[in-house]
Amino acid sequence: MALTRLALICLLVHSCCFGVLMRSVSGANETHFFKWEVEYMYGAPDCLENVVMGINGQFPGPTIKAKAGDTVVVNLTNKLLTEGVVIHWHGITQRGTPWADGTASISQCAINPGETFNYTFKVDKAGTYFYHGHYGMQRSAGLYGLLIVDVEEGKEEPFKYDGEFSLLLSDWWHKGVHEQEVGLSAKSMRWIGEPKIVEKMKAHNSWLHEKMKEVDSFGCSFMLRAFTLSLLINGKGQYNCSLAAAHNSGSGGLLKCNDTCAPYTLRVKPNKTYRLRVASTTVLASLNLAIGKHKMEMVEADGNYLQPFSVKDFDIYSGETYSVLFKTDQTPRNNYWISVGVRGREPNTSQGLAILDYQSTTPTKLPTLAPPQTPRWNDYQRSKLFSKKLLAHSESPKPPTNHHRRIFLLNTQNLINNYTKWAINNVSLTLPPTPYIGSIKYGINESFDQNSPPDTFDLNTYDIMSPPSNPNAAYGNGVYTLEFNNTIDVIIQNANMLKAGVSEIHPWHLHGHDFWVLGYGEGKFSSEKDEKKLNLENPPLRNTVVIFPYGWTAIRFVADNPGVWPFHCHIEPHLHMGMGVVFAEGVDRLGDIPNEALSCGLTAKMLMSGSGGKVKSKIELVMYQEKAYYILDEVHIVGELQESSKKTGSFICCTGFFGGGNQRRSKFSEQYNCTGNQRIEDYDQTADYENYVEARDDV
Amino acid sequence: MALTRLALICLLVHSCCFGVLMRSVSGANETHFFKWEVEYMYGAPDCLENVVMGINGQFPGPTIKAKAGDTVVVNLTNKLLTEGVVIHWHGITQRGTPWADGTASISQCAINPGETFNYTFKVDKAGTYFYHGHYGMQRSAGLYGLLIVDVEEGKEEPFKYDGEFSLLLSDWWHKGVHEQEVGLSAKSMRWIGEPKIVEKMKAHNSWLHEKMKEVDSFGCSFMLRAFTLSLLINGKGQYNCSLAAAHNSGSGGLLKCNDTCAPYTLRVKPNKTYRLRVASTTVLASLNLAIGKHKMEMVEADGNYLQPFSVKDFDIYSGETYSVLFKTDQTPRNNYWISVGVRGREPNTSQGLAILDYQSTTPTKLPTLAPPQTPRWNDYQRSKLFSKKLLAHSESPKPPTNHHRRIFLLNTQNLINNYTKWAINNVSLTLPPTPYIGSIKYGINESFDQNSPPDTFDLNTYDIMSPPSNPNAAYGNGVYTLEFNNTIDVIIQNANMLKAGVSEIHPWHLHGHDFWVLGYGEGKFSSEKDEKKLNLENPPLRNTVVIFPYGWTAIRFVADNPGVWPFHCHIEPHLHMGMGVVFAEGVDRLGDIPNEALSCGLTAKMLMSGSGGKVKSKIELVMYQEKAYYILDEVHIVGELQESSKKTGSFICCTGFFGGGNQRRSKFSEQYNCTGNQRIEDYDQTADYENYVEARDDV
Repeated sequence: MALTRLALICLLVHSCCFGVLMRSVSGANETHFFKWEVEYMYGAPDCLENVVMGINGQFPGPTIKAKAGDTVVVNLTNKLLTEGVVIHWHGITQRGTPWADGTASISQCAINPGETFNYTFKVDKAGTYFYHGHYGMQRSAGLYGLLIVDVEEGKEEPFKYDGEFSLLLSDWWHKGVHEQEVGLSAKSMRWIGEPKIVEKMKAHNSWLHEKMKEVDSFGCSFMLRAFTLSLLINGKGQYNCSLAAAHNSGSGGLLKCNDTCAPYTLRVKPNKTYRLRVASTTVLASLNLAIGKHKMEMVEADGNYLQPFSVKDFDIYSGETYSVLFKTDQTPRNNYWISVGVRGREPNTSQGLAILDYQSTTPTKLPTLAPPQTPRWNDYQRSKLFSKKLLAHSESPKPPTNHHRRIFLLNTQNLINNYTKWAINNVSLTLPPTPYIGSIKYGINESFDQNSPPDTFDLNTYDIMSPPSNPNAAYGNGVYTLEFNNTIDVIIQNANMLKAGVSEIHPWHLHGHDFWVLGYGEGKFSSEKDEKKLNLENPPLRNTVVIFPYGWTAIRFVADNPGVWPFHCHIEPHLHMGMGVVFAEGVDRLGDIPNEALSCGLTAKMLMSGSGGKVKSKIELVMYQEKAYYILDEVHIVGELQESSKKTGSFICCTGFFGGGNQRRSKFSEQYNCTGNQRIEDYDQTADYENYVEARDDV
Repeated sequence: MALTRLALICLLVHSCCFGVLMRSVSGANETHFFKWEVEYMYGAPDCLENVVMGINGQFPGPTIKAKAGDTVVVNLTNKLLTEGVVIHWHGITQRGTPWADGTASISQCAINPGETFNYTFKVDKAGTYFYHGHYGMQRSAGLYGLLIVDVEEGKEEPFKYDGEFSLLLSDWWHKGVHEQEVGLSAKSMRWIGEPKIVEKMKAHNSWLHEKMKEVDSFGCSFMLRAFTLSLLINGKGQYNCSLAAAHNSGSGGLLKCNDTCAPYTLRVKPNKTYRLRVASTTVLASLNLAIGKHKMEMVEADGNYLQPFSVKDFDIYSGETYSVLFKTDQTPRNNYWISVGVRGREPNTSQGLAILDYQSTTPTKLPTLAPPQTPRWNDYQRSKLFSKKLLAHSESPKPPTNHHRRIFLLNTQNLINNYTKWAINNVSLTLPPTPYIGSIKYGINESFDQNSPPDTFDLNTYDIMSPPSNPNAAYGNGVYTLEFNNTIDVIIQNANMLKAGVSEIHPWHLHGHDFWVLGYGEGKFSSEKDEKKLNLENPPLRNTVVIFPYGWTAIRFVADNPGVWPFHCHIEPHLHMGMGVVFAEGVDRLGDIPNEALSCGLTAKMLMSGSGGKVKSKIELVMYQEKAYYILDEVHIVGELQESSKKTGSFICCTGFFGGGNQRRSKFSEQYNCTGNQRIEDYDQTADYENYVEARDDV
């Protein structure tokens, strides 16, 4: 009976103390609760069956809809079997909740299998966002979904529309994520796309189709799995579907594909204006989107309003979102393809397709016109023109006129002990097992390299047009510590890869902030020449921006959001290979970080070490370390303990203060007859510490 | 300067307080240190390239060699990217170190990526052992190796030999582990072997070989990957090798296979006696081993000496180890095949092969005689005869005459919400996220079901010869709590599977103990009929024993090893599908469990909760829970807090005692103006608790 009551009350205690479930609703802002389970499941996003990472049995994950000012609570349970998981809320600044940013090793420990983590955060700005895994290659595994934030009730957007649709774009790889990871990390790196093999496959196209059929009698097409990808729109692609055939026959045939990979259909009415929200969570592919016969007006980028302009198609890089408006002003007797194609790499991939359906027949009638084709993949001039047209809406906040600090980030492909890596100013990012947010808050210096990575590269002599003359780089996990409230400029500088004559597009994404895109330029940034070209009038605010081959991009932001924020290439294998940096700002201003976020590595060790409650500050931790020092100092240097230190020694060695268990085996404990039962309450730390400081000062 | 000294001393503190690195060496016993890193790598164990889980770049992992009484320290770093890992030391009883047993969710938390765990344990008995992953399907991924314990110096074994070899047997699946797991867990369960597909492949054999060649022009044979397996001996198998052809040509051709999959070769001298140690870590396959033209003498099973007997071949099930002696008494002009084949399931698999090499030529000359063939797969009578011949050596310890408790474990295949599972007495084991060893030690009752699973099934009416009349079972994570030092009998009872007419072999493995195998029988165990047939005279001591189709096996052990010990079917997918139970004994006798073993789930939460040092006992935790109850009781039932409780309330809600962070949002904290800075030292727990107990007693 006592036990039953206890169990009952225990539940009460939990629901009370967890806090989030009981928080009050203030004003018109709502709190949206979600209970999610992440697990692997079978899926066939492009008609080929495969293993996908789903949420509550759905792929892509459920769409979150909220209004600006609302709070989102996602109670995320990891139902994977042996893998940790986190989810990053891409574009949400997480002011006051940096531990909810969902970056493993940075804002939190990965959630262990069977465990649950509460992501509670405010969505403070209307816009088009998405979420995705941020651990290993879990985005590649399919862990993503949309997050749509409407304007607050009573507020208006600077444009009008009659209805809206959202498209989440992704690229879907047939090779398993774990094998992709091994390939990328192998000494002889294997790129996820294996382009040479794809070339072979193309050359053997007709032969291959026959083979595919034969293999299909076993239920699957294995050769396809290994080397190929599909473009997905809202999780649907058509690798091996009869779509193309149906179209080419000119019969205007009805859609034959089965449900799981049938193109997503947008059912519209004639003569209306629609908002199309588009987000790209691709692993790799840079994309271009067009709607057959329909012009579009660009109105929003990454949750920020644009000075509107009209386009026939637009580029979208991994990590970016856009809203466009389009009018259904074409003949309603037809349907129209929405088409997505690859840019920036020679594509071996069919267009991704969706259908703009004026007719609302069931099943949907296929468009009679061919899908719009992507511009030439390497027409970078066209892409640059588009990027430079993106300017802030007139009511958008302006950047500060001056910067306090300017950081140059040189992007190079490198070799480290013959492993292929990406490095920034010659440092290839490797994430530590303990999350930075905890290490920095509690001053656990041994968690990561305390030297800051360099603020610049050799601007004078480095030749960005050639392969690195010394291809070696170093691994590093150091952090750029930004002075709180400083205005920071970053010049992201592209360069030649290891192979001569090649430089690639990289979309860089910053967590915790929007930044102003001050400009793009060719070649190496020159303070003399390029400074004056920077746009301080109406630069667009964004969270993701591209660097073009052999070019630079300049951004500015204010370091006013206490937390630890990665800035990285959003191409998942590139991040995996080290292409990122970490910014820390105002961490000392953070309140308590939830223990759940720190339940791994050295933060767990510290918090589990019986330190008499949470160590609240760096000062306090240093104090504890000094105490340990105090003892060892006297034992090792003086040769024996003074009377005043015995209690401290006993405490340190017998309570398991510094973790590790089995303290009784230590020398101190043998010497001072540790019973293993001392408790921190028995120990008057303040007095001893003061004694110690006095003693030290005397030296 | 202060910082540098601090960092230095911090290292000193760590190495001191971790203890294990500084333990003294006593007598002739040695401590063996190993620094291991687990990671995925490319490998081609059977000539087909695949991803394998290796240790320090080796597959199988390094062989550990020690002497009885020695201590083994494995400093294991997880270099996987998103997966946890543990290693179980199969057959080692872990007396005094139950947290080093290496079972995720049972003896420890999985080691997170980037983190290191110290396995420190004594190998107290000479014998043939091995180690392997015990988390998800990581054994299937290739995480295993040998652990050989020799007799102490100056002691002798009850047999003599001139040299020894060790063979680690495994089955290697071409389908990736993660996909295997998804298939096993899918609503429409997909068995790892897909036997129907294999049948198809056999029917298309010649066609298939042509296809394989074609596909090979792309560098690999994908069709093979999906459905097939190979048998490996010391990590080498020959799926697609020219071995068979070379043999069949009668040319006595030299070995053509490349190194990674060339058969393991045992180089012997004529007219000697060799000890062959054999361990089976197969995922699924029951095996039989023979050496062409050579008889063997069985002398050891699972680290226990046998009454020796002679065989031409012997069965070995997953989880078992044997030592056999053989004489090199055949003509040294030939070499001889050592051959391993599948038993208990109709094999679609070639024999695993190794070469007994009398000639020591390089390269090795192939044997001219055909490899010995495995006995008919379903000749269970033969297998039973062999098992019953296994009897203890005359000097082996005898079992206690009587048992204190007898547990019947009915093995059935079941459906739970249409998911295919295995259940024991109708409970299908699901492991909780918090390791039992910590939950039980600290009385964290909400970690798992506090109801013990049933000690028996309906012995009178259950028909083991037919599919379950009610195929439903329940998930469960309850524990069998064994009275310390009790003698426990377990009758493992086999039964029909879901499909009529089928009952399979299951090798059951017990952690933390050897047990006596008292007997095997047909049909349902009958106390009346079968009791008197149990062998109390010379039953063999083992850690793994098989149940035959439609039969039972009786074992006895003494619950004298404080810890939490799983007892489960050693077929990895069967355990994955719930085929196991958990025994707990004497957990209250355990000293401090290292924090590192408990750094997850509710144990981490408790230890990180600022409870003023480690909570040392169940009593103490209950006390804390009672305190929470105390507050809530008064708020929720009486309607407001009494004066005496305010301090307690403030403490619970403001220190984050019950975890969860952000306690300031709770009702208590709003009501009592929590500053978030209260510390446990400010709170006089004992006085308040005594007040509470008084108050409760008054009700």
